[in-house]
Amino acid sequence: MSDEYEGAAYEIGASDETVHSAWDNSLEPVQTVESGDVVRITCRDSTGGQFGPDSTVADIADLDIDRVHTLTGPVAIEGARPGDVLEVELLAVDHSGWGVTLILPSEAELGLLAEEFPEPDLYVWDLEDGVGRFANGIEVPLDPFPGIMGVAPAEDGAHSTFPPRSVGGNMDIKQLTAGSTLYLPVAVEDALFSVGDGHAAQGDGEVCGTGIEAPMTVTCRFTLRSDLSIDQPQFETTGPFTPSGRDEPMYGTTGIADDLQEAARDAVRQLIDHLEAERGLERREAYMLCSVAVDLKINEVVNAPNWVVSAYLPEGIFPAEQRRSA
Amino acid sequence: MSDEYEGAAYEIGASDETVHSAWDNSLEPVQTVESGDVVRITCRDSTGGQFGPDSTVADIADLDIDRVHTLTGPVAIEGARPGDVLEVELLAVDHSGWGVTLILPSEAELGLLAEEFPEPDLYVWDLEDGVGRFANGIEVPLDPFPGIMGVAPAEDGAHSTFPPRSVGGNMDIKQLTAGSTLYLPVAVEDALFSVGDGHAAQGDGEVCGTGIEAPMTVTCRFTLRSDLSIDQPQFETTGPFTPSGRDEPMYGTTGIADDLQEAARDAVRQLIDHLEAERGLERREAYMLCSVAVDLKINEVVNAPNWVVSAYLPEGIFPAEQRRSA
Repeated sequence: MSDEYEGAAYEIGASDETVHSAWDNSLEPVQTVESGDVVRITCRDSTGGQFGPDSTVADIADLDIDRVHTLTGPVAIEGARPGDVLEVELLAVDHSGWGVTLILPSEAELGLLAEEFPEPDLYVWDLEDGVGRFANGIEVPLDPFPGIMGVAPAEDGAHSTFPPRSVGGNMDIKQLTAGSTLYLPVAVEDALFSVGDGHAAQGDGEVCGTGIEAPMTVTCRFTLRSDLSIDQPQFETTGPFTPSGRDEPMYGTTGIADDLQEAARDAVRQLIDHLEAERGLERREAYMLCSVAVDLKINEVVNAPNWVVSAYLPEGIFPAEQRRSA
Repeated sequence: MSDEYEGAAYEIGASDETVHSAWDNSLEPVQTVESGDVVRITCRDSTGGQFGPDSTVADIADLDIDRVHTLTGPVAIEGARPGDVLEVELLAVDHSGWGVTLILPSEAELGLLAEEFPEPDLYVWDLEDGVGRFANGIEVPLDPFPGIMGVAPAEDGAHSTFPPRSVGGNMDIKQLTAGSTLYLPVAVEDALFSVGDGHAAQGDGEVCGTGIEAPMTVTCRFTLRSDLSIDQPQFETTGPFTPSGRDEPMYGTTGIADDLQEAARDAVRQLIDHLEAERGLERREAYMLCSVAVDLKINEVVNAPNWVVSAYLPEGIFPAEQRRSA
């Protein structure tokens, strides 16, 4: 947790009056701000407080999926017009000391290998020491970011928060940490920005469907950019591109298939095999670890008919005596 | 170019007698080695010498696609049996001071945006200073690696070198630089390893179909690992994960679609738009730059029905005065 950002013009807490669980351009703004204003926004965890540090796997049976994701907002940015771009500078992103990683039951159809992991599971993380401690002495570095940032869609009505859209939303771009800048295409008057789905850590891909889901405070500066025009979100970031911020040893598995999604599945399956056989994790633990700490890269998407996706496991998350030399 | 690795037991040059352009388990080995041996292997460029420092775009019309890719080998590793794993430690990878990036005509169907770039194009790189100089003062850092490493397939006959396979081949994993270790599943007696398709630099994705294609010398140690069992290639690497080896500013564009390949296309299209509008490149230049210096990551593949692939452009390749602050 970094120090609180000083100088926010507005504070928006997470109360029943300031949260919502669908994209809807008819929602009343919880705050109206001007271009250039800094706002500090508190977000519940993605489930809207249905889990906490004392949760157990049994609590998954009671999960109300309609409250996922709980977003804070919308924030109206005065003068924003469709076709403008909303610049969102992320000044500070702070977690609250705990988080949870979930495997939802297979009927939820959430997860790259949902059919192979039909049983629900849950891991509660203590994040107080600035690191996420997992099974077998594994420590996952924390790089908090909001999984969801977006503006209201042009289409009327209530829209699910699950799929990301051209106006942003559930993009889960793990490099949108403090110091990054996100550009969103404005679709309605006053933009109507909302944020939530805090992740204290996540791998590129978020393969089991959740990262380290954590309540979060996001401080950002909104700037209207009528000089720009974009069709989908764009961003500036300085990473993290590895857990340490430097080149470091990784173990990689390849998925080679004629479909990128199948290639991604193959790579993750083999990394789960590796984590089970070589690192002593149970398969459900391995799947969750892949979701919070393993990155998927597209190595090539041009050598028809087979593409390559690889999964990169950082050695640095293991205790020193368990690392392979690379 | 790093110093030559000292102590190779065998040298294999690139002559008409030591190269081949198809995977075929009936090829006679050009060298037989024992487990633990170090071999220094010279590779022609991927086209087998059909291009050189003086090539022009007109030469593409004469390209004999049957000589792509020209691989050096096969090397027989004595005692290797189907089911074993061949460990290939990359001790040194050296380019030869020049390279070429190609856009092949659309009938070649090579490239993520082949239909949008129907005209052939070529850029010759001078790599003598350890960096690839491009248009507008752009400098692409060099991290040479062989795009193709593999062993002979179990299936008899001649097989194209274009698609990667479970036994490796055209994987284009840019992190397989010197210092990395590749594990390949052995499918035939003596493994029959071949290597080629040197890339002095490449982005994750290799979106236009070529990297900086360059003749290369690869020094590696082969070790038989009968204790391991894998279905597809695996590897250990320390990167590069960014051009500088450290977290650094990147500009990102997102592709959001219900198909990962379409998402990748969207992200690259928007980065090409950005490079044209904001960085003053021609579109064909932008496409080639994406292929040699831009990385594709899968941000999420679980938020049905839409997945996110982003394209990451390092600011550090631009002259200082052209960089955006991140």
